[in-house]
Amino acid sequence: MGRIVQKFGGSSVADAASIKRVARRILNAKLAGNEVVVVISAMGDTTDELMDLALQVSPQPKPRELDMLLTTGERQSAALLAMALSDLGAEAQSYTGSQAGVLTTGTHGNARIIDITPGRIEQALNAGNIVIVAGFQGVSQTTKDITTLGRGASDTTAVALAASLGAQYCEIYSDVDGVFTADPRIVPGAKQIPEISYEEMLEMAANGAKILHLRCVEYARRENVPVHVRSSFSDKPGTWVKDKSEGSKMEDAIISGVAHDRSEAKITVVGVPDQPGHAARIFETIGHADINVDMIVQNVSQVVSGRTDISFTLPMSDGRKAIEALQADREQIEFEDLLYDDQIGKVSVVGVGMRSHPGVTAKFFKALAEAGINIDMISTSEIRISVVVDVEQVDEAVRAAHTAFGLDSEGEAVVYAGTGR
Amino acid sequence: MGRIVQKFGGSSVADAASIKRVARRILNAKLAGNEVVVVISAMGDTTDELMDLALQVSPQPKPRELDMLLTTGERQSAALLAMALSDLGAEAQSYTGSQAGVLTTGTHGNARIIDITPGRIEQALNAGNIVIVAGFQGVSQTTKDITTLGRGASDTTAVALAASLGAQYCEIYSDVDGVFTADPRIVPGAKQIPEISYEEMLEMAANGAKILHLRCVEYARRENVPVHVRSSFSDKPGTWVKDKSEGSKMEDAIISGVAHDRSEAKITVVGVPDQPGHAARIFETIGHADINVDMIVQNVSQVVSGRTDISFTLPMSDGRKAIEALQADREQIEFEDLLYDDQIGKVSVVGVGMRSHPGVTAKFFKALAEAGINIDMISTSEIRISVVVDVEQVDEAVRAAHTAFGLDSEGEAVVYAGTGR
Repeated sequence: MGRIVQKFGGSSVADAASIKRVARRILNAKLAGNEVVVVISAMGDTTDELMDLALQVSPQPKPRELDMLLTTGERQSAALLAMALSDLGAEAQSYTGSQAGVLTTGTHGNARIIDITPGRIEQALNAGNIVIVAGFQGVSQTTKDITTLGRGASDTTAVALAASLGAQYCEIYSDVDGVFTADPRIVPGAKQIPEISYEEMLEMAANGAKILHLRCVEYARRENVPVHVRSSFSDKPGTWVKDKSEGSKMEDAIISGVAHDRSEAKITVVGVPDQPGHAARIFETIGHADINVDMIVQNVSQVVSGRTDISFTLPMSDGRKAIEALQADREQIEFEDLLYDDQIGKVSVVGVGMRSHPGVTAKFFKALAEAGINIDMISTSEIRISVVVDVEQVDEAVRAAHTAFGLDSEGEAVVYAGTGR
Repeated sequence: MGRIVQKFGGSSVADAASIKRVARRILNAKLAGNEVVVVISAMGDTTDELMDLALQVSPQPKPRELDMLLTTGERQSAALLAMALSDLGAEAQSYTGSQAGVLTTGTHGNARIIDITPGRIEQALNAGNIVIVAGFQGVSQTTKDITTLGRGASDTTAVALAASLGAQYCEIYSDVDGVFTADPRIVPGAKQIPEISYEEMLEMAANGAKILHLRCVEYARRENVPVHVRSSFSDKPGTWVKDKSEGSKMEDAIISGVAHDRSEAKITVVGVPDQPGHAARIFETIGHADINVDMIVQNVSQVVSGRTDISFTLPMSDGRKAIEALQADREQIEFEDLLYDDQIGKVSVVGVGMRSHPGVTAKFFKALAEAGINIDMISTSEIRISVVVDVEQVDEAVRAAHTAFGLDSEGEAVVYAGTGR
């Protein structure tokens, strides 16, 4: 008898009818002989509605209280789902994150899972129950206060529970069929990827693919939990995210997919003295403001002035905070000017095959050049190449890369065979 | 420095504006030098809306899951109230019933408080916080599952917390000014009662006065917690429910108030053998069906047949269940027929002065007779006389009693002086 964890998102439980539909799906997994643990998000727009209510009461709601408020959404859907399952004749019980033993740090609004002590879940499973766990939440190991793991983190709850319960795999259900080679809204010929490695999925998620949260993929990789990303509206297989060293046919894929991200902005610090320590001061300032920097480019120093420009990208939502922090430290950093640009986009090609296939960079840049797209910044990892381009050219860049690497569905045979250069 | 517990009902926190208003009121109590613990109900119609949602998912929602669902309402209002208080510059923290240490029996939907272990509340108070506790809920001492105390039981949570925290008193805020000598919608001249004893309030609550729940008053009496029932919409003093032996001026009141109740029905078991044991069998049957009986009348036995009729009243909502249970046991009970009547109402006069003033019964019945009202059933306690009348005559009976005992506001001076007979 297998043990599996299933996670359903808010769109899968938007109303009573959806909850009943999901209940039948869960029951099928149980009837197929599995022990089933389900992690559930809040119904539809519940979280947004609760957030609106909080903002009506206080312009800056206290994070501890916001966590108390927002976690009720998942508790409601968990209870309703358990009722629906009981109504189908199944034994089912709902648990809050705290009851399920999801122990976290005390950072309200963005806590991290420290440990899971699933004693009550194990007991409920042993008693024959389908167990429904409220996602997105836990309890602070130190203060015992209710915490949330950050928006969309029910995926992480599911994977963490799967790891701690020794589940065979974790299914993440949403309203899309799986992971695609590119966003199908931009590339109509984008194809669903049957299997992708943890490393590739990490790069995809970190560079704009929204289907799985970064932290969830990190957790899955660390604990080696196979994740099946699939649609709650069909029975088609989705995308397996797993350790590809376990004898996959897909070892040869050069580029698995093209990701894009329009959520970043670029700050250029103009005229910084080209001496050791000044660049460090910029990023100390940014770090103290609790802002994560993505790409960094230092221009070639100008011999005449002895000064240089440093550009970096960051989440657009942190733009104002970063500018203010830098202005405040202007004397220490000694820069001449600050430029802010949020009309940028990032396009990334991701694939483990890159490690063994040189020439991917040249092919990517050539495709962009032929499409008349100017590259503003570049960064690379072992299995990814990212470029920053004008936000207006993001779609065109995604399509150009998708075609250049043979990912369009017309050239299906080419996809995983690789023409590597 | 005093310590007080305040409880606000759902109508006091129906929307963001109300929550902010209540927050200012709570802050005033804190600024007056008190340690303040607040028990809060769910916002407006939240509980009813959640119940509707549950019924959409399952016609008979599992009680355990219903408790998980419904308790989110109070958690939301508690969190929002804490946010509003923080916004006013106060330190405030919300707690679930479970976090507040409200330990209950495991009867989902109608649990009873076994004990309160307010360790976290004490700590939060010592740290200078205003503490907001989600009402209506606790945690089962045995299963650790979330429980509810039954509808409207936030009053009980408040009084129980006041007792366990050694609070000076408990304020119950609602949308009415206090306890009245009769329902002002029926008796326009009804007056607010400044003080009432626990015993009288128990009789009022048990006989239809909806302002405080019976269990709450029982708890207050047992733990000797003074309760101040007042309006959240004004600063006027309300009604103090307390031990009147502590030197009250009101010792002489004969009748404190007139209560009425239209929620009961009457069942008459016709033609029961007038032999020992047959009446007992009726109430065994009713007891096994988990139905609480109120008044019982056994008619004089008819000599010819050797049979008698037994009538009793019960909550109208249990009527069908009682009839079915009696029909099922017809052979054991040996009755001839069952009559069901839900067109009845109960009118009760309540007052501790009754103990020392004979003649109250005569005065009450005379007033009813003069108003042309027929009495169907009678029951009495040491400090209460209740009659069952036709439901159409309830209002008239309340007015007649109110006038007869000098409770109308024109005769204010008479009220607590007593003309006792």
